[in-house]
Amino acid sequence: MDYFQSYADLEVHKCMLEDSARNSAYFQAILGNKDIFSGQTVLDVGAGTGILSVFCAQAGAKRVYAVEASDTYQISEEIVKENKCEDIIKVIHGDVDTVSLPEDGKVDIIVSEWMGHFLLHEGMLDSVIRARDKFLRPGGYLFPENATLYCSPCRVPSLNEDWKNVSGVSMLSFSKRLQNNSLSSPLLLNVKPEHILSEPEILLWIDLREATVDDVNCNKIQHLAVVDKSGRYQGICLWFTCSFPSLTSEPVVLSTSAEEPLTHWKQTVVALPVDISVERGQPIAYDISIRRSPDNNRKYGLEVEMLDPDDVVHPEYCTCFKTRCILTRAVLEKYENEQMQE
Amino acid sequence: MDYFQSYADLEVHKCMLEDSARNSAYFQAILGNKDIFSGQTVLDVGAGTGILSVFCAQAGAKRVYAVEASDTYQISEEIVKENKCEDIIKVIHGDVDTVSLPEDGKVDIIVSEWMGHFLLHEGMLDSVIRARDKFLRPGGYLFPENATLYCSPCRVPSLNEDWKNVSGVSMLSFSKRLQNNSLSSPLLLNVKPEHILSEPEILLWIDLREATVDDVNCNKIQHLAVVDKSGRYQGICLWFTCSFPSLTSEPVVLSTSAEEPLTHWKQTVVALPVDISVERGQPIAYDISIRRSPDNNRKYGLEVEMLDPDDVVHPEYCTCFKTRCILTRAVLEKYENEQMQE
Repeated sequence: MDYFQSYADLEVHKCMLEDSARNSAYFQAILGNKDIFSGQTVLDVGAGTGILSVFCAQAGAKRVYAVEASDTYQISEEIVKENKCEDIIKVIHGDVDTVSLPEDGKVDIIVSEWMGHFLLHEGMLDSVIRARDKFLRPGGYLFPENATLYCSPCRVPSLNEDWKNVSGVSMLSFSKRLQNNSLSSPLLLNVKPEHILSEPEILLWIDLREATVDDVNCNKIQHLAVVDKSGRYQGICLWFTCSFPSLTSEPVVLSTSAEEPLTHWKQTVVALPVDISVERGQPIAYDISIRRSPDNNRKYGLEVEMLDPDDVVHPEYCTCFKTRCILTRAVLEKYENEQMQE
Repeated sequence: MDYFQSYADLEVHKCMLEDSARNSAYFQAILGNKDIFSGQTVLDVGAGTGILSVFCAQAGAKRVYAVEASDTYQISEEIVKENKCEDIIKVIHGDVDTVSLPEDGKVDIIVSEWMGHFLLHEGMLDSVIRARDKFLRPGGYLFPENATLYCSPCRVPSLNEDWKNVSGVSMLSFSKRLQNNSLSSPLLLNVKPEHILSEPEILLWIDLREATVDDVNCNKIQHLAVVDKSGRYQGICLWFTCSFPSLTSEPVVLSTSAEEPLTHWKQTVVALPVDISVERGQPIAYDISIRRSPDNNRKYGLEVEMLDPDDVVHPEYCTCFKTRCILTRAVLEKYENEQMQE
């Protein structure tokens, strides 16, 4: 037994296991749905330390296949024994794309914690999709069953005005360097809710029951956000939610939004080479794309292009303060009122 | 101008500049002693981003030499300009061991933030000592002027009992691996004050006015700690304090103790391959050494040897619960009382 597994590997799992929002979402989704799990066969894709497999056993699963490709499978074997689940959980050391499962090779439920930063980056969604096609019985469940990636313009004071006064010293030339360094790759930050400048917009929605690997190669969307609190526009913030099936109660949602307790995913910020004062009602237009890296299937890049809000089509009921939108809204509302009175 | 300086370098300085306990100790020590700085010549050893040099200029220094060996000197030049201190602060790109200073080559004050983890590891004390010998006028000041390294037995629940129940799953086999991985090198942790098991003891005390480079090659001390709160003995915690000269008020002390607000140094923990239940009054004996690495002058190693408290000599007034110490204390106190009555 190799106790001296790479410290970096252990630290990654430590960080995930210390994320109580993550643990508790899976705990509630699984243990709160014993009717779904009772007597069923489960596949845990990328089982890691095996905690989700133990949840499934505790929820009454008849059989759990905990598939883990890395050496971490050794830890999951220990955890399974420590929790006296050897009769239910079978740890399989291998790649879920190549393993085969015992008996008819099918399962009733797939559980997986596959989400990476900004949902897809360094995640394992492809493996979950392929495992679904190969192993999930028709009508089977996926935990989670859908995922949404959100974005919104935001303030990034930690790259800007936070440095105006460091114990009486102005350090904006330092923050300028931080900012320049941040342009090349997205940042993982703890964004405060008051720094999110508009209602969230959806960049990507994935129904895990239907999605294909090609569906998550590249998504590009043009957004027109309307500022709902005055502030400085310095970046685009991204976060995701996942929701789990439920027969009875409200479905459990795991959210990495700035409004929710911080998770180990934090929020992702694309810093912009600008620092623009914006006010309530002001429209902000941008293109944003999330694209799979050509060099590494598991990596994704984010690209933001700032657009002139006068050059893009505003939605019919746009709430921005541009005269055209105010007039259009007034006309539409008047028309609706007339329709209702007839 | 190279804006794309290594992200890692910038992150190190960001981390230090965001440490408000550190900033504020230097700010108070320097700005609270304008009588010391007014009209004087100052050397800032390892100036980094230059924040301490700006403090000195603000405190009335006539001239500040900000010596920085790395490319960070470029940032300090920008910060000096941003704070309009070009006439007072001269940034010198070079190693303090080889540079020479203008005029008579002497200064009245040396400031430096040279402290590494557990005071010495990856710090710059040698450079400060050599700069003192080479540049400091007799009777000059050192900021800070002394430093103390403390140690105490402690609990380390994050490697132990914190893992007994992770959302209902027992993960002690995981923490066992974390613990085994931690035996090879000290950990940087945020230790809670209630996890410190005894009064602090001093491992090292450095008077920067007198110390030589050889004084900090190796220090080994045998400690007998007396447990002052029951708990589990799982490691040795180390932290340091530095104090600054003052003509008037109480000297400013920068403390990285678990009792004080967290700094970027955190606390250092040497994890032990044991988990021993100890109770109030119980003696804990250990040897601890801090030793300069033979391969790299700036690195230090820590070694702890656990000793049997029955094998070491207890101090005269030992407060431990061993019968011999209780009796000795009673006899000594009786004798003292008799002396006082005579």
